[in-house]
Amino acid sequence: MNTPIRIGIAGYGNLGRGTEAAIARCADMTLAAIATRRPASAISPIDPAARIVRWDDLASLRGDVDVMILCGGSKDDLPEQGPALAALFTTVDSFDTHARIPEYFAAMDAAARAAGTTAVIATGWDPGLFSLSRLLGETILPDGTHDTFWGRGVSQGHSDAVRRVPGVASAVQYTLPVEDAVAAARRGDGADLTTRLRHTRECYVVLEPGADPESVRRAIVSMPHYFEAYDTTVYFVSADELARDHSGMPHGGFVLRGATTTDGGRQVMEFGLALDSNPEFTASVLVAYARAAHRLARAGDHGAKTLFDIAPGLLSPRGAARLRADLL
Amino acid sequence: MNTPIRIGIAGYGNLGRGTEAAIARCADMTLAAIATRRPASAISPIDPAARIVRWDDLASLRGDVDVMILCGGSKDDLPEQGPALAALFTTVDSFDTHARIPEYFAAMDAAARAAGTTAVIATGWDPGLFSLSRLLGETILPDGTHDTFWGRGVSQGHSDAVRRVPGVASAVQYTLPVEDAVAAARRGDGADLTTRLRHTRECYVVLEPGADPESVRRAIVSMPHYFEAYDTTVYFVSADELARDHSGMPHGGFVLRGATTTDGGRQVMEFGLALDSNPEFTASVLVAYARAAHRLARAGDHGAKTLFDIAPGLLSPRGAARLRADLL
Repeated sequence: MNTPIRIGIAGYGNLGRGTEAAIARCADMTLAAIATRRPASAISPIDPAARIVRWDDLASLRGDVDVMILCGGSKDDLPEQGPALAALFTTVDSFDTHARIPEYFAAMDAAARAAGTTAVIATGWDPGLFSLSRLLGETILPDGTHDTFWGRGVSQGHSDAVRRVPGVASAVQYTLPVEDAVAAARRGDGADLTTRLRHTRECYVVLEPGADPESVRRAIVSMPHYFEAYDTTVYFVSADELARDHSGMPHGGFVLRGATTTDGGRQVMEFGLALDSNPEFTASVLVAYARAAHRLARAGDHGAKTLFDIAPGLLSPRGAARLRADLL
Repeated sequence: MNTPIRIGIAGYGNLGRGTEAAIARCADMTLAAIATRRPASAISPIDPAARIVRWDDLASLRGDVDVMILCGGSKDDLPEQGPALAALFTTVDSFDTHARIPEYFAAMDAAARAAGTTAVIATGWDPGLFSLSRLLGETILPDGTHDTFWGRGVSQGHSDAVRRVPGVASAVQYTLPVEDAVAAARRGDGADLTTRLRHTRECYVVLEPGADPESVRRAIVSMPHYFEAYDTTVYFVSADELARDHSGMPHGGFVLRGATTTDGGRQVMEFGLALDSNPEFTASVLVAYARAAHRLARAGDHGAKTLFDIAPGLLSPRGAARLRADLL
């Protein structure tokens, strides 16, 4: 048995907690430390013996951590934390603001090259495994068409938008693919599907005392950008019901690629996920890519990387000969 | 525009023909030549201007071909042709005898290293994309369970076995996944599924004149290894019906990986293919990996490779920055 890979966790929300659970499933890894801005008394790690480090003392972990997994948010945390931590550690993150990936890549690449570290960015499932599926689809069936459907799953952004509506005490929003649209995409008839025909939205809402349900409903379904283009159903529930039935974080969806054969037949590739816990799955992807990041760093392959740059075999604790014999 | 990648096709059966069609869909590739053992008069390439070369003159293509795609069979052709051609060209093949992959890899690796070429082996979909899905599943959900289902599709090996039964003039065999078994695997209840519960088999059989249908049926369904462990249905059809309804080569299936979350929920990854033309799709995968093979060879990364060794970005004609901006 080789020396275990020492993993650090930077940020201990849902994703950090999922990462801790995922590390515990990997015999070749050990949890070196959890760094958090929260007071140590406010967090209860799965392993009560886990070493907790104050955020401001992160730099003290250099030499004790092989790969730091960045579990902060993409909007406010990673653009600042990412380059700062890539200057100290080999890192893996799930940066997911699609439009800002080129700029984030450039910042991480500069920091990692200067420091002689490796920074694997934008792993997880979308971006991440879904991106990989799109790449495989586009390269294997270059004259095909592509569709992505999401759900059934909780959208944090849309849930937040509903919570900001006056009269809403709390809310959870689910995105659902429309089955007829999925079937049409599989057949190759998906090109004309409008946004409204592809996904529906469901909101489970707890009202403030005295709020008018119909006004709240109208404010939600007509909200520009978030709900206007969709068929949205609003369900009013009690705070207890919301806590009991809607506190999970399911998500998933699938990526379809279809093309026509020379004789007019059909070829369809499909990658799908059905996840009862979005943060636990995202964390599992981060942890697998942490293994690859460690190997790249040790091989001197520094700078920023995405999963497009990483040979899949690097994800596995098994050697190449075993993988060929057992999995190919 | 860069100089197109010059592709050669070695072997012109269904797979070679599919490869010719797939090359025509790639703007960055050109068909340099088709090498075949058949008389030139017996083949009709899609592009009537395609250069046809006799098998014995294959070596004369050195310098005119960047990547040779090996379209021979795994049983009799590739074990001998593969190393001989890897000594002359950078190659890609769809060697699919799972049990002999280590030995084939070693022979191809030795030939390619000695010649300074790159030999990408065992691409296609199983082995190939299904292997990649198994690797991703095992590394991302290490404590999960795995299932592969095949079909609905034509199995050449089983069709051949039926054709050898006395009284059978011609036959096509389909493998079908059992829907209840697929549902059980998705739920995580697939561990106890026996072979009989996972797939069924259907045979479409044209009888020799005077053959006894019931004897033929019994000989098929009781055949050891091939049919004994399965529920098999035999349909007797006319030669015309067989030609009209069963001359396609559909196939597909899916790879499932499921695991349990820390709170007892479920995470399921699924990669599926539904192919109206198995050889055309396999050829499309070969051609995408030919692009990667060419890049590896040019970068001096010689020897045998599998898709576990190849960064997915190498499959695309687009540059890394464009892939990050558009697909990630």
